[in-house]
Amino acid sequence: MTDAADLTAPRRRRTGGRAGHSARAGHEVIDQMPWRVPLNTDRPTEPLPPEGVQAIHDGAMRVLSEIGIEFLNDEALGHLRDAGCKIEGQTARFDRQFVEEMVAKAPPSFTLTPRNLARQITIGEGHIVFGNVSSPPNAWDLVRGKRPGDMETYREFIKLTQYFNCMHFAGGYPVEPIDVHASVRHLDCLYDKLTLTDKVVHAYSLGPERVEDVMEMVRIAGGLSHAEFDATPRMYTNINSVSPLKHDWPMLDGAMRLARRGQPVVVTPFTLAGAMAPVTLSGAVMLSVAEALAAIALLQWIAPGCPVAIGTFTSNVDMKSGAPAFGTPEYIRATQMTGQMARFYRLPLRSSGVCAANVPDAQAMWETMNSLWAAVQSGTNMVYHAAGWLEGGLIASPEKFVMDCEVLQQFQRYFEPQILGTSEVDLAIDTIAEVGPGGHFFGCQHTQDRYQDAFYGPFLSDWRNYEAWQLAGSVGTTERAHGIYKRIIAEFEPPPMDAGTQDELTDFVARRKREGGAPTDF
Amino acid sequence: MTDAADLTAPRRRRTGGRAGHSARAGHEVIDQMPWRVPLNTDRPTEPLPPEGVQAIHDGAMRVLSEIGIEFLNDEALGHLRDAGCKIEGQTARFDRQFVEEMVAKAPPSFTLTPRNLARQITIGEGHIVFGNVSSPPNAWDLVRGKRPGDMETYREFIKLTQYFNCMHFAGGYPVEPIDVHASVRHLDCLYDKLTLTDKVVHAYSLGPERVEDVMEMVRIAGGLSHAEFDATPRMYTNINSVSPLKHDWPMLDGAMRLARRGQPVVVTPFTLAGAMAPVTLSGAVMLSVAEALAAIALLQWIAPGCPVAIGTFTSNVDMKSGAPAFGTPEYIRATQMTGQMARFYRLPLRSSGVCAANVPDAQAMWETMNSLWAAVQSGTNMVYHAAGWLEGGLIASPEKFVMDCEVLQQFQRYFEPQILGTSEVDLAIDTIAEVGPGGHFFGCQHTQDRYQDAFYGPFLSDWRNYEAWQLAGSVGTTERAHGIYKRIIAEFEPPPMDAGTQDELTDFVARRKREGGAPTDF
Repeated sequence: MTDAADLTAPRRRRTGGRAGHSARAGHEVIDQMPWRVPLNTDRPTEPLPPEGVQAIHDGAMRVLSEIGIEFLNDEALGHLRDAGCKIEGQTARFDRQFVEEMVAKAPPSFTLTPRNLARQITIGEGHIVFGNVSSPPNAWDLVRGKRPGDMETYREFIKLTQYFNCMHFAGGYPVEPIDVHASVRHLDCLYDKLTLTDKVVHAYSLGPERVEDVMEMVRIAGGLSHAEFDATPRMYTNINSVSPLKHDWPMLDGAMRLARRGQPVVVTPFTLAGAMAPVTLSGAVMLSVAEALAAIALLQWIAPGCPVAIGTFTSNVDMKSGAPAFGTPEYIRATQMTGQMARFYRLPLRSSGVCAANVPDAQAMWETMNSLWAAVQSGTNMVYHAAGWLEGGLIASPEKFVMDCEVLQQFQRYFEPQILGTSEVDLAIDTIAEVGPGGHFFGCQHTQDRYQDAFYGPFLSDWRNYEAWQLAGSVGTTERAHGIYKRIIAEFEPPPMDAGTQDELTDFVARRKREGGAPTDF
Repeated sequence: MTDAADLTAPRRRRTGGRAGHSARAGHEVIDQMPWRVPLNTDRPTEPLPPEGVQAIHDGAMRVLSEIGIEFLNDEALGHLRDAGCKIEGQTARFDRQFVEEMVAKAPPSFTLTPRNLARQITIGEGHIVFGNVSSPPNAWDLVRGKRPGDMETYREFIKLTQYFNCMHFAGGYPVEPIDVHASVRHLDCLYDKLTLTDKVVHAYSLGPERVEDVMEMVRIAGGLSHAEFDATPRMYTNINSVSPLKHDWPMLDGAMRLARRGQPVVVTPFTLAGAMAPVTLSGAVMLSVAEALAAIALLQWIAPGCPVAIGTFTSNVDMKSGAPAFGTPEYIRATQMTGQMARFYRLPLRSSGVCAANVPDAQAMWETMNSLWAAVQSGTNMVYHAAGWLEGGLIASPEKFVMDCEVLQQFQRYFEPQILGTSEVDLAIDTIAEVGPGGHFFGCQHTQDRYQDAFYGPFLSDWRNYEAWQLAGSVGTTERAHGIYKRIIAEFEPPPMDAGTQDELTDFVARRKREGGAPTDF
């Protein structure tokens, strides 16, 4: 813990149109890249041969037909019974052909349209989009250390999510604000999310009231009629199975509610190899695929063609302690393997930017880089937890958030096609002749014409030499990230929302609070 | 700077055959993976279409035929004149067909055999091998900070290079020992390298005496006759061009000396886009390829079929300061593009594990991970500077060395084929049926039979939760790495060498010192 007060003084970077950076840098805390939705043009890394993909598919079909999946939701079981599945108690067994037929109904991509139409994102079609860390109960920062999440901290992360152009969507709560009662938490959280950001938001599938409230609030924030809301994806939910082999009531309920209104559902089993899944990677991936397809088949039966995505959260435990590990070699391979399965089923893929490290240090970044490269290599379309994640998801950290956004910008730059040009002008043979042996290219016209946009310009990396860095106070990466975080929060301006819409949202929240919000179990 | 004395107490990890780890862990500082030479089975990432590859090749041929390359070495110019190249002053212009014909004579792979035959490595054929940081003038560690390199520090890095099984070769001097006079430095350095390690070593091409001394010392250390030495690759050199468009005298001299004796030459231009090369990536890659092929054509003319590799060190500068940057998006793409060119020419590829960061923190690791993933994605066969590099190559750091070895082990594990199995037993459908909905896999036989080797076990990553980590003193990654480094040095045992060989080496060094060593220019 250091006193970071001295790090928070405004220290704007000089403006100048470097590498496609914002022209508005003059009044920005940092000179960040403009909004863009990167297209992943890399051929995916495919560790499995075609027979391996087929073996996992066949295995998943056997799990679904021979073992079956528990659906702790009578409505879901009723639908599956209608569809011809074998229901025994709460276990549904699926005919292979039924699953294949239902999964084939899912669209290979879908477009999410938030209240700001300029922040529309397509999930699929080769795109890769990034969202903030979701659901940690705790926060950590350099000054305050680890502490339980609260509403003020929640708002800070929401502001970071809005501020960074490389954040394409606002996932779940970036930290759980436990100082707000669970019955009304979703109302306050969504109010803040919908007013402090203009990006795609998410609803937790934690009970019908919460899901309906969030859908209604997204509709109001977008200034939409009910028909307009239902006509196209405006938001989404993510559901997890209770691995192994089980789907819980509220998750299924929320998923069905969204599917019926044309809103996307991401189905993400959490199959930790060696704990909730077989210790063998292909077994864990197969179980994850089976659980995901079970829910997707249900949703396609209820609402044929509804937008869905398959999520992967397959990793391994530390066999010494049972603790989950992330960004490991096994995690990378499982993610790549799931990518192959997603393409086999023609479904969009969700994975994550994750690590096991407790603080935003070197380990945090090598683990996070492994998980982000796995996202790229697997053809992931939607990267959850891409900024701010620590301690296996138990901590959200603003310094980590800022570091991750630095790295995400680099991935965005990596995917810019113009850096791959091989035209006569790109090859610059005349310039090489002009410069000649032993000369340098700094001053020549070919360089002068291009240098401002030629290379990625970081906002957090320090590329000065050691002595210059030392003279400037030897400020480490975490400290620099802390300073940037504080300045962003200090200078944050919410995106515009018209007063009528804001009033309608305020009134809705007030009314629902008067009605008691959502029921709680405790 | 912290006092790390308390970090250096022996704290051995418990033994146990986790994930292919050394069974000798009981008397090892850490439980590291055994020696293995990974096979990169991933399909390379190829950002250029075939026309792009052809455009760079055509461009390189135009540079060689129209502009030409300066060879500051009359012997080399004589050979090229004999070969039919157009020589004007010190510039050689190459006929395209001649270059293509010469390059085609180079073998697609070669095997290096050091004095310990078990440490043989093949460069090419899909292998990826790792070597230590080479040539920084300075060292940095957590206790002593930045300081000029000296012999004691040099020895520490050589010990780390020997200790870690994921270090496949001992590259250049991991730090320049400036306390030893340059005339005899190579004698002391190679003596230490050849006695403290039993891995493949390297000779700097910095004058005929040095090169000849090193070849002779490698011959003696291997207990080889001159004929045995010449019969197969025992060591190698790496030469850099003076970009743009120039090859220097000592580099060419050393390269020709090794080539004539069948010892491999890696040719690595250092084309920093925007400084010594065009600001456009394809231009910088094309210039690098042209410079490399010029030297390779010369060597193949002199010694047809001699082992060579093409190196890439194309990165970009920071256009604000002119400082070199590493592990950037442009660096990754340039490395991948050069990989495509290396496959086009059927030459082994060398790249690097590099960063611009000044200290081993989060930035150091995201930059290093980018460069290591670029090595994997480009199909790199030989990764220079894979452990210990900081400050764009101006600093060698033992903590960074330890961190990098943790990460390199993870890459090795990533390439183990057994984690990709999809047999009936791997899929574990019966086990899933046995465990059933909501159960867990910790206790079942399928897990018990496999858990010891199922997952990679790190020696540096801390996967405990925050509270356990905090109770243990909140020791950060850099501090943990420092402790491991100190314990490795404290307990280091050199590999065996028979007394006769060691005496012969000692005598050789003594004699050459009496003769004055190598001439120096200063």
